[in-house]
Amino acid sequence: MSPRDDDGGGPVEEPLVAVRVRRAGGEGVLDVVAVEEPLAIRVDDRDLVVLMRTPGDDAALAAGFLRTEGIIEDRRDLAAFDRCRDPADRDAANVWLARLAEGAPDVAARLDAARRPFVTGTSCGLCGKTTLASVLQAVRPHAEAAVLPRSLLTAMTREAAARQPLFAATGGLHGASLFALAPPHPVLAAAEDVGRHNAVDKVVGRLVLAGADAAPPAALWVSGRASFEIVQKALVAGFRALVCVGAPTSLAVALAAEARLTLVGFLRRDGACNEYSGDVAG
Amino acid sequence: MSPRDDDGGGPVEEPLVAVRVRRAGGEGVLDVVAVEEPLAIRVDDRDLVVLMRTPGDDAALAAGFLRTEGIIEDRRDLAAFDRCRDPADRDAANVWLARLAEGAPDVAARLDAARRPFVTGTSCGLCGKTTLASVLQAVRPHAEAAVLPRSLLTAMTREAAARQPLFAATGGLHGASLFALAPPHPVLAAAEDVGRHNAVDKVVGRLVLAGADAAPPAALWVSGRASFEIVQKALVAGFRALVCVGAPTSLAVALAAEARLTLVGFLRRDGACNEYSGDVAG
Repeated sequence: MSPRDDDGGGPVEEPLVAVRVRRAGGEGVLDVVAVEEPLAIRVDDRDLVVLMRTPGDDAALAAGFLRTEGIIEDRRDLAAFDRCRDPADRDAANVWLARLAEGAPDVAARLDAARRPFVTGTSCGLCGKTTLASVLQAVRPHAEAAVLPRSLLTAMTREAAARQPLFAATGGLHGASLFALAPPHPVLAAAEDVGRHNAVDKVVGRLVLAGADAAPPAALWVSGRASFEIVQKALVAGFRALVCVGAPTSLAVALAAEARLTLVGFLRRDGACNEYSGDVAG
Repeated sequence: MSPRDDDGGGPVEEPLVAVRVRRAGGEGVLDVVAVEEPLAIRVDDRDLVVLMRTPGDDAALAAGFLRTEGIIEDRRDLAAFDRCRDPADRDAANVWLARLAEGAPDVAARLDAARRPFVTGTSCGLCGKTTLASVLQAVRPHAEAAVLPRSLLTAMTREAAARQPLFAATGGLHGASLFALAPPHPVLAAAEDVGRHNAVDKVVGRLVLAGADAAPPAALWVSGRASFEIVQKALVAGFRALVCVGAPTSLAVALAAEARLTLVGFLRRDGACNEYSGDVAG
């Protein structure tokens, strides 16, 4: 039932834990809940961030976080990339170490920029408009919005659900799945996490770790809502479309329209949806 | 349609914005989405954090964040507390300024501690066990778990939904409502926000701003799941119970049990639920 090996040295690969609960008016039963633990990411011996996450896919999470925060461009920017193996560190299983390649440009500047969102500095960059402008400088808007094929939208809910085994077991996780825009729309990567942002970062991280040179024309499905930060991550990763089961926020719609990311919300099982940016074909 | 007054000086009080969307296979219609904008909180001229939030309830959000992050204990710790009024600052409407009272103890230490979660320092405090221990030092566990009355659970969903007008309009917001444990279980505070944590902070902030000396015996209802951080905020605020519509995470269950916070998940409209910590009466 423990989410980690007792020897303390192994990877954390068990994302479920059982607890005894009492259903109201009923007897005690075993329920399965999603494991949530912190993962610290250190870059060049500097502590970057602690993410509360579902263990078990930490390399993808760390790589994706570094990519969507703009610290790395691809795998070649990583000279070393591994879980902490220091036997003296009791928390080694929850620490991820990255060392950037010598040639990686502007590392210090990128790290500072990535830290800024957490404890930001100036008033500049705070209003919606300024934020959009500064993000647009970083994300390279698409030349034109991609058209989402109807065949993809009608298959998406079923295909994504099939890749959410932890949600099926716990009801408590977010999911993200990346689909190729071209038929038959294969799933390029999928992930689950207690955090919505983490699930997206894991999908991006899988592509990074696979050494993909450029993002394929793809649409990202997310189980929850689309906030500004989710749109930002999709754009940084180079995806062409974002499809969410819930609602988008105002800033998500504005950023998607400005950067020509096709944005669809309230996707239903039969493919019905709302288009906030870009178009659905057919 | 603009989320803020054009004069740039007024408070941001409009949490909804309409956008034109095309329903797949249909015509363009107006849809209403929740406004998401950044709010910067500055304490004693230091930038503390930028929160992506639903505008319109910023005093409560800022006060609640300062309270649940352990920077203030109550309203008396705030010598000044207002939106930025600097006409030279274009983003003044999205900046909140707090000045701590002279007598407020350990301000520097508290600020440093509050900053730590965003860019944490040492490996200490990273594993679940260590995190629990350090949090427990800060939150004062309850002597015993409160018993949740059945009458409260059966009324909660209806009463909370009545206080989520923005969710009803957009489908895109989280809600939090605080109920007195004692019959007839009046709602002590309620709030909505694009962020789950923000909705909880706003509820806590309302109590702080009302000058409540001690938290009343109360149960917090949240629209989403219960993560470690939501349990942490409920405990810091002194609430006795946390009721969530979704699932709890493993660390949420562990912290609730350790600190004797009654934790209920998967609450249904008829009051059916799972008890993860504490008891439901009747």
